Amino acid sequence: MNNPSGFRPSGIVTLTTDFGQRDPFVGVMKGQVLRRHAQATIVDLMHEVAPQDVDEGGFWLARSFENFPSGTVHVAVVDPGVGTSRPVAIVEVNDQVLLAPDNGLLSELVDRVNRPVLRRLDPGVLPSLGIARLSATFHGRDLFAPLAGELLAGRTTPARLGPEVPELNRGRRTEPVVGDGWVEGVVVTVDRFGNLITNIEGAVVARLGACTVVLGSEQLPLSRTYADVPANGYVALINAFDVLEIARNGGSAEATLGVGRGTTVRVESGGRG
Amino acid sequence: MNNPSGFRPSGIVTLTTDFGQRDPFVGVMKGQVLRRHAQATIVDLMHEVAPQDVDEGGFWLARSFENFPSGTVHVAVVDPGVGTSRPVAIVEVNDQVLLAPDNGLLSELVDRVNRPVLRRLDPGVLPSLGIARLSATFHGRDLFAPLAGELLAGRTTPARLGPEVPELNRGRRTEPVVGDGWVEGVVVTVDRFGNLITNIEGAVVARLGACTVVLGSEQLPLSRTYADVPANGYVALINAFDVLEIARNGGSAEATLGVGRGTTVRVESGGRG
Amino acid sequence: MNNPSGFRPSGIVTLTTDFGQRDPFVGVMKGQVLRRHAQATIVDLMHEVAPQDVDEGGFWLARSFENFPSGTVHVAVVDPGVGTSRPVAIVEVNDQVLLAPDNGLLSELVDRVNRPVLRRLDPGVLPSLGIARLSATFHGRDLFAPLAGELLAGRTTPARLGPEVPELNRGRRTEPVVGDGWVEGVVVTVDRFGNLITNIEGAVVARLGACTVVLGSEQLPLSRTYADVPANGYVALINAFDVLEIARNGGSAEATLGVGRGTTVRVESGGRG
Repeated sequence: MNNPSGFRPSGIVTLTTDFGQRDPFVGVMKGQVLRRHAQATIVDLMHEVAPQDVDEGGFWLARSFENFPSGTVHVAVVDPGVGTSRPVAIVEVNDQVLLAPDNGLLSELVDRVNRPVLRRLDPGVLPSLGIARLSATFHGRDLFAPLAGELLAGRTTPARLGPEVPELNRGRRTEPVVGDGWVEGVVVTVDRFGNLITNIEGAVVARLGACTVVLGSEQLPLSRTYADVPANGYVALINAFDVLEIARNGGSAEATLGVGRGTTVRVESGGRG
Repeated sequence: MNNPSGFRPSGIVTLTTDFGQRDPFVGVMKGQVLRRHAQATIVDLMHEVAPQDVDEGGFWLARSFENFPSGTVHVAVVDPGVGTSRPVAIVEVNDQVLLAPDNGLLSELVDRVNRPVLRRLDPGVLPSLGIARLSATFHGRDLFAPLAGELLAGRTTPARLGPEVPELNRGRRTEPVVGDGWVEGVVVTVDRFGNLITNIEGAVVARLGACTVVLGSEQLPLSRTYADVPANGYVALINAFDVLEIARNGGSAEATLGVGRGTTVRVESGGRG
Repeated sequence: MNNPSGFRPSGIVTLTTDFGQRDPFVGVMKGQVLRRHAQATIVDLMHEVAPQDVDEGGFWLARSFENFPSGTVHVAVVDPGVGTSRPVAIVEVNDQVLLAPDNGLLSELVDRVNRPVLRRLDPGVLPSLGIARLSATFHGRDLFAPLAGELLAGRTTPARLGPEVPELNRGRRTEPVVGDGWVEGVVVTVDRFGNLITNIEGAVVARLGACTVVLGSEQLPLSRTYADVPANGYVALINAFDVLEIARNGGSAEATLGVGRGTTVRVESGGRG
């Protein structure tokens, strides 16, 4: 049995949303955290998740949260269903807590970690926390930020927020398909540099041995780092988040290959002929 | 008589500017706050106010500041007149303090709150605070950030910064026009999702009873939340900031309606025929 | 001899990168700082340095760091060579410490300050700091953030990180050319407002006396502030960072002049004929 009492708040909270950074939406969430816990240290993990792209947000959460210390609360809000009655998911793992709409946003993380404790918020506890009036369109400010603040201040615990459940909503995430000598996945996200980042794990690629990465008409060997190819050359590598990435040394692979999120990427065992 | 002595600094300061986030302008303002008060908690409220759009900045300030705890200092710099001799406005309300150029940036907030205390900075106090040398183009760094730091550190108070004044510069903000059975306003801001956010308050719309929202050739009933219409449908609702918003469920109303800031929006009592 | 023992960490760290703000790269760096020093105050100085533009990053670092208090650690990562064996530069100046790839990113700063202490990281110290496993593509997370955290926590000092060196890698920065009665430089960066910011220092322009600024077919006198020209007029001025800037009052000089980073700007003594 998991022991959820391991969570001791460090005062650190991260925010992951698709709210962008041009509007004050993230700022007012921070205000609501600070109203509950003025000593909070608030970190923006990511706010440019593509609007309502639960898979992109979940991909990065699963690969980012471990960089934070024990006692961190992570709040994630990518929520196409805001205003409907979808529940709130709570995950405890490695002495950290994650809060998110129960729409699949935490499902990749849950799949990847050891012994997460899964909970669903009991809405009945909200009045006792002074969380009463929810707007129909901004649960980040009205629900998630106050919940995080209460956790940070130590006035509640994950266990008191809701009962353990056997599983959370998995959402509609598509996972890579692994065949005999090949694996096929997709570009999940494109970073600031135009690097195409896929959902194909390094370990899966490693099992193929020497291999070729196929993206449209490009066929690339696997390299170690960007500088392994000449300037402006394309390079396929296992990146720092341990997934397959296709980049262009000194340029944007997205711009010149003309592909983006959702594009199929295939890895086949065997070098180029 | 208002009692301005209610302000006790919490150490929290928010920043609202039109400086954007690609340059180091906001970062150096934070440095200047920290030089004066190294324990400050600095929150970015909004930096993507449309360049020099005092109305957009003022709209969001008026609807965001209440999310912060007592003792917060809010610094706002949207300042087409930087380098000229325009004065600095200081507003105390709800045990919070706001600092801004006296160009109308705080006027919507002042109109909406109870018993604000209005002041104008006395430039004569600046030398005693070690604020001496102002550049002609960056008062955010040279004036507003140091003032905020001094307030946070408790080395000055609003009352010591300048005398009370009966009113501040109102700027050129246009308010909605209310007629018999209708109200007409404008899109003040477009958010990251392409939602068109107007200056028409929920209470004004409520007084019309059943009503129709007219935006160009679109005529929409009033809904409660985005999910009240089918995917890609347009929806008009009173949003979480209590103003009328026209959105597209799962898409960008701005992109497909082809309208933006400044577009007229009309609400008429009576449902569609 | 310089006394490097002046550095006492304030707990403040700034981050300057070309990582942008749409991905979680900056956020996970912050997590790694907080894992080492949970009390850190982390300030984003700038993350939109043009990808791999060492000169733009170095320009802003040199003109921003002095806004921060003693004891600040500045981490800068603009690193075309990540994954190769380039060393890490450490600079102590004014009781602050800067960490960056040794690729020229700190060279403009070093040129401008008095008595900087220059060091190169000794990789042999990393295991003792628990910094062991570097990815090939993300030294910001795996090396620079942990180093900053160790400095902030006081568990190491600049002197213990590596030996003093007589000079650092200067990179490929081009400096303005000064002739008899003229100076020629380039636009180093374009800010959010479309202002064209050059590498020509105010002091160099001052030595020319009355002068004309030439940019393409535009010839402009030197003004003091934006409001010195009519709305939509072009204006040349020495900006708040003490370099020559060409702006458009109320608009974007970049958009209407059609020029950007790298464009030549010339200043000639003598007013327009």
